[in-house]
Amino acid sequence: MSLPVKHALITAAGADERRLPLQNLTDRRGDWKPVIVIQIDEMLEAGIEKVGVIIRPADRPAYEAVLAPYGQRVTLVEQPAPLGYGHAVLCGREFVGSHPFLLQVSDHLYVGGGQSSCTRQLLDLARAEGCALSAVQPTPESQLCHYGTIAGSLVAGRSDLYQIESVIEKPTPTVAEQTCVVPGLRLGHYLCFFGMHVLTPTVFALLETARAAAPSERLGLSPALATLATREKYLAARLSGRRADLEARLGVFRAQLALGLHGPAREAILAVLAEELALDATLRK
Amino acid sequence: MSLPVKHALITAAGADERRLPLQNLTDRRGDWKPVIVIQIDEMLEAGIEKVGVIIRPADRPAYEAVLAPYGQRVTLVEQPAPLGYGHAVLCGREFVGSHPFLLQVSDHLYVGGGQSSCTRQLLDLARAEGCALSAVQPTPESQLCHYGTIAGSLVAGRSDLYQIESVIEKPTPTVAEQTCVVPGLRLGHYLCFFGMHVLTPTVFALLETARAAAPSERLGLSPALATLATREKYLAARLSGRRADLEARLGVFRAQLALGLHGPAREAILAVLAEELALDATLRK
Repeated sequence: MSLPVKHALITAAGADERRLPLQNLTDRRGDWKPVIVIQIDEMLEAGIEKVGVIIRPADRPAYEAVLAPYGQRVTLVEQPAPLGYGHAVLCGREFVGSHPFLLQVSDHLYVGGGQSSCTRQLLDLARAEGCALSAVQPTPESQLCHYGTIAGSLVAGRSDLYQIESVIEKPTPTVAEQTCVVPGLRLGHYLCFFGMHVLTPTVFALLETARAAAPSERLGLSPALATLATREKYLAARLSGRRADLEARLGVFRAQLALGLHGPAREAILAVLAEELALDATLRK
Repeated sequence: MSLPVKHALITAAGADERRLPLQNLTDRRGDWKPVIVIQIDEMLEAGIEKVGVIIRPADRPAYEAVLAPYGQRVTLVEQPAPLGYGHAVLCGREFVGSHPFLLQVSDHLYVGGGQSSCTRQLLDLARAEGCALSAVQPTPESQLCHYGTIAGSLVAGRSDLYQIESVIEKPTPTVAEQTCVVPGLRLGHYLCFFGMHVLTPTVFALLETARAAAPSERLGLSPALATLATREKYLAARLSGRRADLEARLGVFRAQLALGLHGPAREAILAVLAEELALDATLRK
């Protein structure tokens, strides 16, 4: 059974994001573009037809200015109040309707390791497997405090595809050791979310139920994904590529470096490094 | 005679600038700030009290959003139509009044070589010399097509201060060889503007005269500065530091690298370089 994925959601309503998705970078073709435009272009190139961007109401003019050229292909969806990541996703329910959908965060830049973008790798796998699929990456236990973490096991005959059994949001190392050990990883490493998922509309129903049960609390996504794993076939995949966290110190600089090293701008970016380090040495004499 | 400089103009109305001054960088203290904020902060730290930013009318909301925290210290001045760099400067006449003023471009980031910013070095020199003063840097003849170039000679007893005799906008190498040779520079190098000047209000009168003579033509700044050199004491200085052209390919990346290498973020930026180059090597295996 193949899974047709034509819709995508990008969450860009986090208070920490400080409009980072609107920062410009030089993309692989040498064009100067906002991060969110690079992300949307990768989605459209991978077969997505409609993208919903979840934003804070106050940021609408800034996003409209950047995304207007996409016309009907991009829709801005407001999250009226910061009620959690699950709530942000739930705001996209009407836009997505009863379709499977790609979900990506906006505060990371993804750089595919080979010729395919991470987005395309994920979509190709989800379409082939015909089920919900989250990208994961092996993560040392010191970083678990930042990520949703899965429990699961390798799919028979595959080296990079896992059956998800549970999802735990930001587990402590002790909890992770008891529940999230995945055979074949390095000691003290766990499979954490990469920030990129293909989900079925079942997730909206699960989020809505959780919201109805505790309407004043922040709504996470991981508990709904944990339930999803008990209801449907739900896999995790290690992709070829990496991400740069734009929110980290020098994160935008790191993202430009990662993007530049992997593509036609490689020689140009290495030349900039060599020139600036040489000039720096001269100025320090 | 000392020259009190309390006013500054930043030109940010060029069509090529694509709002580059609003791009954010991690500054020397680790704060994430738009380039124009880094520039204005350096001006205020160097004793400037009022800054006028010359913008295109359409960019007013974007600049207002970023510069509102400065209150009365920053004024937006609209250039109603793109009639040349001299015209942009002339738009600041009413804001500056009959005072000497600092003039800086907005599409470069300046990084002082020592403890003082380039802005402070220029202002300190202008105040001490009591005259108009342009920052210059030795530039190979292949780059003359981008810059205003001076003719002049070293001030007696100084190694970095020149008496300006004339100013020629973007001379050909032949013209430069005939008129702009400055003793003491490497062969084929000339002193070109660095994008940072202290000027007297005489410049406004000269620009106004030129504009009245040819109201429909683009108005350059260099011809007015050439005339200024015949009317007043007008010096040029080589500063300790460098600039990064934000408009160049990977210019914002280069600016962040230059800024990061020169300050407390030095180790952090070198760590990012080492990590990304190592990760790149791994992904290429």
